[in-house]
Amino acid sequence: MSDVVNVTTGPIAGSTKVYRNGVPFRRVNLTTGEHLDLYDTSGPYTDAGAVIDLEAGLPHRRVTRNRGTQLQRARAGEITAEMAFIAEREGVSPELVRDEVARGRAVIPANHNHPEAEPMIIGKAFAVKINANIGNSAVTSSIAEEVDKMVWATRWGADTIMDLSTGRDIHQTREWILRNSPVPVGTVPMYQALEKVGGDPVKLTWEVYRDTVIEQCEQGVDYMTVHAGVLLRHIPLTVDRVTGIVSRGGSIMAAWCLAHHRESFLYTNFEELCGILARYDVTFSLGDGLRPGSIADANDAAQFAELRTLGELTGMAKSHGVQVMIEGPGHVPMHKIVENVRLEEELCEEAPFYTLGPLATDIAPAYDHITSAIGAAIIAQAGTAMLCYVTPKEHLGLPNRKDVKDGVIAYKIAAHAADLAKGHPGAQARDDALSKARFEFRWEDQFNLSLDPDTAREFHDETLPATPAKTAHFCSMCGPKFCSMRISHEVQEAMKEKSREFADQGNKVYLPVVTS
Amino acid sequence: MSDVVNVTTGPIAGSTKVYRNGVPFRRVNLTTGEHLDLYDTSGPYTDAGAVIDLEAGLPHRRVTRNRGTQLQRARAGEITAEMAFIAEREGVSPELVRDEVARGRAVIPANHNHPEAEPMIIGKAFAVKINANIGNSAVTSSIAEEVDKMVWATRWGADTIMDLSTGRDIHQTREWILRNSPVPVGTVPMYQALEKVGGDPVKLTWEVYRDTVIEQCEQGVDYMTVHAGVLLRHIPLTVDRVTGIVSRGGSIMAAWCLAHHRESFLYTNFEELCGILARYDVTFSLGDGLRPGSIADANDAAQFAELRTLGELTGMAKSHGVQVMIEGPGHVPMHKIVENVRLEEELCEEAPFYTLGPLATDIAPAYDHITSAIGAAIIAQAGTAMLCYVTPKEHLGLPNRKDVKDGVIAYKIAAHAADLAKGHPGAQARDDALSKARFEFRWEDQFNLSLDPDTAREFHDETLPATPAKTAHFCSMCGPKFCSMRISHEVQEAMKEKSREFADQGNKVYLPVVTS
Repeated sequence: MSDVVNVTTGPIAGSTKVYRNGVPFRRVNLTTGEHLDLYDTSGPYTDAGAVIDLEAGLPHRRVTRNRGTQLQRARAGEITAEMAFIAEREGVSPELVRDEVARGRAVIPANHNHPEAEPMIIGKAFAVKINANIGNSAVTSSIAEEVDKMVWATRWGADTIMDLSTGRDIHQTREWILRNSPVPVGTVPMYQALEKVGGDPVKLTWEVYRDTVIEQCEQGVDYMTVHAGVLLRHIPLTVDRVTGIVSRGGSIMAAWCLAHHRESFLYTNFEELCGILARYDVTFSLGDGLRPGSIADANDAAQFAELRTLGELTGMAKSHGVQVMIEGPGHVPMHKIVENVRLEEELCEEAPFYTLGPLATDIAPAYDHITSAIGAAIIAQAGTAMLCYVTPKEHLGLPNRKDVKDGVIAYKIAAHAADLAKGHPGAQARDDALSKARFEFRWEDQFNLSLDPDTAREFHDETLPATPAKTAHFCSMCGPKFCSMRISHEVQEAMKEKSREFADQGNKVYLPVVTS
Repeated sequence: MSDVVNVTTGPIAGSTKVYRNGVPFRRVNLTTGEHLDLYDTSGPYTDAGAVIDLEAGLPHRRVTRNRGTQLQRARAGEITAEMAFIAEREGVSPELVRDEVARGRAVIPANHNHPEAEPMIIGKAFAVKINANIGNSAVTSSIAEEVDKMVWATRWGADTIMDLSTGRDIHQTREWILRNSPVPVGTVPMYQALEKVGGDPVKLTWEVYRDTVIEQCEQGVDYMTVHAGVLLRHIPLTVDRVTGIVSRGGSIMAAWCLAHHRESFLYTNFEELCGILARYDVTFSLGDGLRPGSIADANDAAQFAELRTLGELTGMAKSHGVQVMIEGPGHVPMHKIVENVRLEEELCEEAPFYTLGPLATDIAPAYDHITSAIGAAIIAQAGTAMLCYVTPKEHLGLPNRKDVKDGVIAYKIAAHAADLAKGHPGAQARDDALSKARFEFRWEDQFNLSLDPDTAREFHDETLPATPAKTAHFCSMCGPKFCSMRISHEVQEAMKEKSREFADQGNKVYLPVVTS
């Protein structure tokens, strides 16, 4: 590689990397002497003691003995090393991890050939996960930029990465990302297959596609989006749509099917594909090639016809021992979101749902991380296991470093809001710790417990940069006299004083009791 | 005023100001020759033909004949000039406007002494509205900055403004804002009253407060937050909270009640207050002084005890002919949001609900416009009529110009997403127009139909600035070969071709029909 790759290393502000039974956590050390350990996706890059050598790649985190998929081993009653790691990471029992995998309600994307990644799980019984898409396009970016984005995205909390490169050096870019990624890596093999036939969908063949899949399996890709549910008979259902087919893989397959007037080669060769993925324990991410691309097209016949086909393919994949998740929309108004989850669970045996947003409105290009975080929070609360982020550049251009971080943070918010709403054990602890720090004017703790300590601190310091302001009982929003929290402390003091008087006076009631 | 006030004027990119029956709209002129008229909060500032003289204030938009409140006149069966204006603006019948006001399910905040404002309505039968808080603090900002923020906030869609100044020159700042605001202005009179007694809550008296209310009514304030529901007996319910009392007005009244061991003077003098507000047709915004300040405190006994008292006060205010809305939280996890709306409607006679967010998690200071846009969209879908914005600076400092815009846009997204979900007439038209422009690669139309044309264009042009890119059938996100929309057009063409063949061949079925 000609470019010099520079990535961000070192701990997140106020945190240290700790390992509990070999599992990494971001430990936030509070000024009270207490600490809170947070789920940590960032790998060795945030370990002050780690030596990073991008040319050499990350050290191996696990030994892979190529003897079946996590699904097959879970069904056999085994608790694999990956499952034990995940149980510690999620704060749940290893048996729960195994049982959810065995039922197909959770997946552990862990290609035998990707030992650099730290095991993680995607399933609705666990913390909601987020994926960050990176990858170049023919118009812009380089390998160096994409490796940097990968490290940057995992620093801020991306649980998986998808390399969606469609430009130059697809194989080489993926190699750099895989060897240096602490999280599972997903791809859409169709993109590289299309490059191999010069960009013309009509020239695609099963053989070219299959060989591309094998190439990527060998390299270590952990999960692959396969648009095998786009059938010839579904295509006419898209003709009256406002935005047609908006999935790249979906539109490519539709073009192929129509040009040859044949059924999709992904569908007709699906069993052979299962055999390949099973050998490496690569997880299917069955793509929603007919997902809606606008509010107008949400939950339409084309979308749900494909979902039905994905259900059929789910059963086939699982019968081969291959792990499966199902991709979902896209663009859906709020009142139509929950139906997507219910139908996916019904048709696809509760395989983990992995959705792109959805955007709850189409009127805010440049802010689609927000339009989609709304939809993402709602769909995750309803049971979606992983959320594919959307950046502010969606629909407008390739995201840069800042966009990647903005997208990741927006989606960490959506995922965490859903965890809270689902009562996920441990989710509330972080909110409570931050709220307590806020009420006690421990500004540094408030920053350090947040999703983005750097920006929180920077915003505060914009108006009150001096050190004493970090323990001051106000900020510039309300100023010293109008800080409700300061007055509230005085109220609490006064209440305690009254309680003492009350006790001294022989416990006569002095405050009416609320009846409600 | 010593500072020079500079505000942003001129049309929003790609739009022109038009008046239909005297009601302003933002007309987006499409490259197809069609146009779309959008609800427009920005007043004369975006009218290319208007002359702006901040010293003189805006021209009067209505004649006020001081003869009762909108509520009293609606009950009497009258369709006021304001109601007719609003019906045109919302695209509904004048009778609907009158009936909703008469039932107390909607309010028209329109002080007789604020003729500069363009009439608008807050109620769940109409488009969801958003409020932007501005105002200085003792630590920072000036009159010039706050007037600029007011114009800036309404440019991007703020339906009302609250001037929450607590610093220098409170009266003078408010005068500049009122005389130049095209939207209703709300205040919290307690802040100025507290300034008058040197900032010590204990020194507050009913007389000081009452005189402040009269001063602000005379000036033209359209609605006032009054924390009359914070009763002595509610205060002990807050003692075990994680974040105590976080409303400034609430904490001030709690401190007063405890110090004097007397019932709140706002509660004991509420009837007199009703008499004052009725004379000017100022709307009550009954404040939630005990709203939760953290996820941990959501929906607790203190919060709902106060809401019950607000219900009692609602009846009292309406019996005096005063319009009423009810303020709501704050910080609430997603699964507890809808209960807030149901209880408010039950206890407060369906008076319009006006909520601050709520934030769906506490772990993202610097991104609370996003944490709260999630909660805001959900609570608006459930029936909340107006959303008070939260900016990225919330909990960290006083918002600047950029923060104000970020907050407004995030809340326009939440409000519009809720309008879509509620099936509000007209909401879908804008999404469809933008989606259609997107699918047809009309980039300029896509930008101009968006909430923020400037930023959408800027993001696109970051990688493809040349003029031909504005009609190109791709952007830098996917590049020319991988644009699904381009391929999708080819698919549609192929489908049409097949249809022609089909017709030519005597309509023999060539594609299987989906059975689903």
